[in-house]
Amino acid sequence: MNVRLIGKTLGAVWIFEALAMALSALVSLIYSEPSGVYFLYVIALLLALGIPLFLLKANNKVFYARDGFAAVAFVWITMSVFGALPFLLSGEIATFEDALFESISGFTTTGASILTNVEAMSRGMLFWRSFSHWIGGMGVLVLALALLPSLGARSVYLMQAESPGPQPGKLVPKLAQSARILYLMYIVLTLVQVLLLLVAGMPLFDALIHAFGTAGTGGFSSKALSVGAYNNVWIEVIITVFMALFGINFTAYWLVLRRKFDQAAKNEELWFYLGIIVVAIALIIPGIMPLYGGFIGALRHSSFQVSTIITTTGYATTDFNLWPLYCKVILMTLMITGASAGSTAGGMKCVRLLILIKAFKRELRRILHPRASSHVMLDGVIVKDDIISGVTAFFFTYVVIIIGATLLVSFDGHDFMTTFSAVLATIGNVGPGFALVGPMGNFAVFSPFSQIVLSLCMLAGRLEIFPLLVLVIPTYWRRGNQ
Amino acid sequence: MNVRLIGKTLGAVWIFEALAMALSALVSLIYSEPSGVYFLYVIALLLALGIPLFLLKANNKVFYARDGFAAVAFVWITMSVFGALPFLLSGEIATFEDALFESISGFTTTGASILTNVEAMSRGMLFWRSFSHWIGGMGVLVLALALLPSLGARSVYLMQAESPGPQPGKLVPKLAQSARILYLMYIVLTLVQVLLLLVAGMPLFDALIHAFGTAGTGGFSSKALSVGAYNNVWIEVIITVFMALFGINFTAYWLVLRRKFDQAAKNEELWFYLGIIVVAIALIIPGIMPLYGGFIGALRHSSFQVSTIITTTGYATTDFNLWPLYCKVILMTLMITGASAGSTAGGMKCVRLLILIKAFKRELRRILHPRASSHVMLDGVIVKDDIISGVTAFFFTYVVIIIGATLLVSFDGHDFMTTFSAVLATIGNVGPGFALVGPMGNFAVFSPFSQIVLSLCMLAGRLEIFPLLVLVIPTYWRRGNQ
Repeated sequence: MNVRLIGKTLGAVWIFEALAMALSALVSLIYSEPSGVYFLYVIALLLALGIPLFLLKANNKVFYARDGFAAVAFVWITMSVFGALPFLLSGEIATFEDALFESISGFTTTGASILTNVEAMSRGMLFWRSFSHWIGGMGVLVLALALLPSLGARSVYLMQAESPGPQPGKLVPKLAQSARILYLMYIVLTLVQVLLLLVAGMPLFDALIHAFGTAGTGGFSSKALSVGAYNNVWIEVIITVFMALFGINFTAYWLVLRRKFDQAAKNEELWFYLGIIVVAIALIIPGIMPLYGGFIGALRHSSFQVSTIITTTGYATTDFNLWPLYCKVILMTLMITGASAGSTAGGMKCVRLLILIKAFKRELRRILHPRASSHVMLDGVIVKDDIISGVTAFFFTYVVIIIGATLLVSFDGHDFMTTFSAVLATIGNVGPGFALVGPMGNFAVFSPFSQIVLSLCMLAGRLEIFPLLVLVIPTYWRRGNQ
Repeated sequence: MNVRLIGKTLGAVWIFEALAMALSALVSLIYSEPSGVYFLYVIALLLALGIPLFLLKANNKVFYARDGFAAVAFVWITMSVFGALPFLLSGEIATFEDALFESISGFTTTGASILTNVEAMSRGMLFWRSFSHWIGGMGVLVLALALLPSLGARSVYLMQAESPGPQPGKLVPKLAQSARILYLMYIVLTLVQVLLLLVAGMPLFDALIHAFGTAGTGGFSSKALSVGAYNNVWIEVIITVFMALFGINFTAYWLVLRRKFDQAAKNEELWFYLGIIVVAIALIIPGIMPLYGGFIGALRHSSFQVSTIITTTGYATTDFNLWPLYCKVILMTLMITGASAGSTAGGMKCVRLLILIKAFKRELRRILHPRASSHVMLDGVIVKDDIISGVTAFFFTYVVIIIGATLLVSFDGHDFMTTFSAVLATIGNVGPGFALVGPMGNFAVFSPFSQIVLSLCMLAGRLEIFPLLVLVIPTYWRRGNQ
């Protein structure tokens, strides 16, 4: 294993984290909150550890697959631990496990909270919490690659391990440039949303918080009632649309920018994703019309909630816990599908579902015509068999983790809906689930053991399982094993 | 499509069904129940339709894959409809949809019941209900092949479509002889169980009912409290052991009979299956000790319930609905896994799970060592890639059907546990679920629409999905499409 290169990567990320925290410290300063000083302590720690590591000389600049996975896993775990420290030191979150849960929930863009009273938090801490969504959404290693192309040759494995989806998209031949373009589009889209929210009447601080949560498809809000607190149709429309936009593969935007509209429109995942959204909204409307006095109210809340759940953001404008069971089952299904690969969203990703459906159809053809051979086609190209078997293995592992985590969390003895939906909402990086962990509930109801299990689900969901799994495989650690 | 050969097969099966019903009529006669006459009406109908069909001359004796699937689907649907008639005509079940649900539940060896008072049924009807488990367990087409080898050349597709598992086992080169051996072992095991139950003090009628339910891993009982009604440890031990035995691949028994112990012991699925049983029993015991006054009582009820659920039988000695949530989650997991391929049990089957786990491990190796190639091995042989992709497609479809059926049944508006476990219990051919459909509840709580959905789940589970799916594919029906 290339220990030096992994160390160098860790160092770089910690320095970035220090910079991100400096922004939060600035917010504390502006609002003259004394808790801002704790950011400075952690920044000092991050720099003291990060700079020497970053200055390490790596003789061998080649990242192998396993190095990439190890680096990603270490980066995300350490980043979350450091990210938890400001909450803990300031005393705004009382215990380490709670602070860590909140931090992992932030970086993984889950948005599940253990806070029972979010409005009691200081502005600086709220900013940090939401900014972690923004960093985690596009990925901190993608950022590192964008700014430090020197990090390593063949660091495609780094990007592969952090970017969601079975076929990580390189926009241009050069990896570092791809990463830069991704972040540029990400920043521009975020800024546009902030501006629109300001125009709709949201205060600047709230606009930033909610734009970070939307862009990263995270879902932390500064309000106990989430977006519902504003009761402003325009704000809801803006957030609904932007959540849906951040759930689209960024490659599509890149194609549009390069005026390759034909190619962008040929993206099967895009239409599949939009199709699911439309169908889900339409199915839910009749069920909730009695709750919201007719079609318009039902359309408003159905659209927002479908958009927030399929993109795994997790904002809420209403307590969808009170909806009829079938609407909740639809939302649970969306928690599993998630939005598009190459976006900031969580879940299984639509493209995997598409590939699974196509592979299933091929299987049917094979049963009926045993001697005929046929391919799985996506966007007009043949999907290679190793991609298909990767996707099926992913699907299987995803289901097994859901079952296993449900079993572990069920020791807490809450009702089945709470237990099961908490697992779906964490592995899918959604945030709220149903029953006790519904949009108006919180994850403080769980034991520390269950919180650890759910934290691992969040990490497994964000990193798409394999980097974490690879860490626990014994052969992985054997010397000379490449 | 070979319409004549499919017709001939249907005719043969209807004649068999008439013979099976004659046995039930005999039971009615013995207990001098007037409702026995309705069996005679249906027998007359079955023979009137079946004999002419069976006498059809099929010029082309070749069964293609799609013929096999079509035949299996038609056989099971018509057999269930005819099987429902005695319940309906006698008035012992009031509506056609209820009678059909009960009949499908019988043949698919599910054992889910809409009866609110099973002890009010006549002996003849109870016998018919349970005998349908026995027929459905090993499969009626396997029986047809055993007795009528002339049915068709290459009828391997028939057996393939009706026998559970990804690799249907041929015990000997000749298909008809394999089928005969399977039924012989099945009959002998059933008789041994009947004898043991008699020795343990069960009346003959009850012993037959419960042996049929055990052998077919069905689960219909003649008692409202199921096996718990006897409160007899020996009866429970016998049924526990025999349920587990009927969940083993019959190939293993054949190997033992031929003294090939080594080969039998090399069966990875067998050890995996037994391992799951032991682990599940051990995990449940601590959770239910307080309910049954200590270790012995907990062991007794844990063993019985684990055996009944993993083999998808569905008897009960206690209301496991009252167990802690984590025990229920374990049981739900067993509902999904099911027992061994080539047994009479339902569920996904352990061997599929094994193949999925191995395929997943291969994927991990592939990620870590992108250039190395490796195989999936089972029982010391390489599992071919088309078997693996068949299994993964099966798994995906299974999960999709569970989600889809949960959505459809959720329109009834029962609680989530009732809805979800009803789907798991029907597609897995288990029988009872949790909450309203727990071992002391029944499926009468569902709307006719949900009953149809759950009936289709039972058929999809028993026929392992593909035969039913193939029927609804438009291209399937196109002329000249082979």
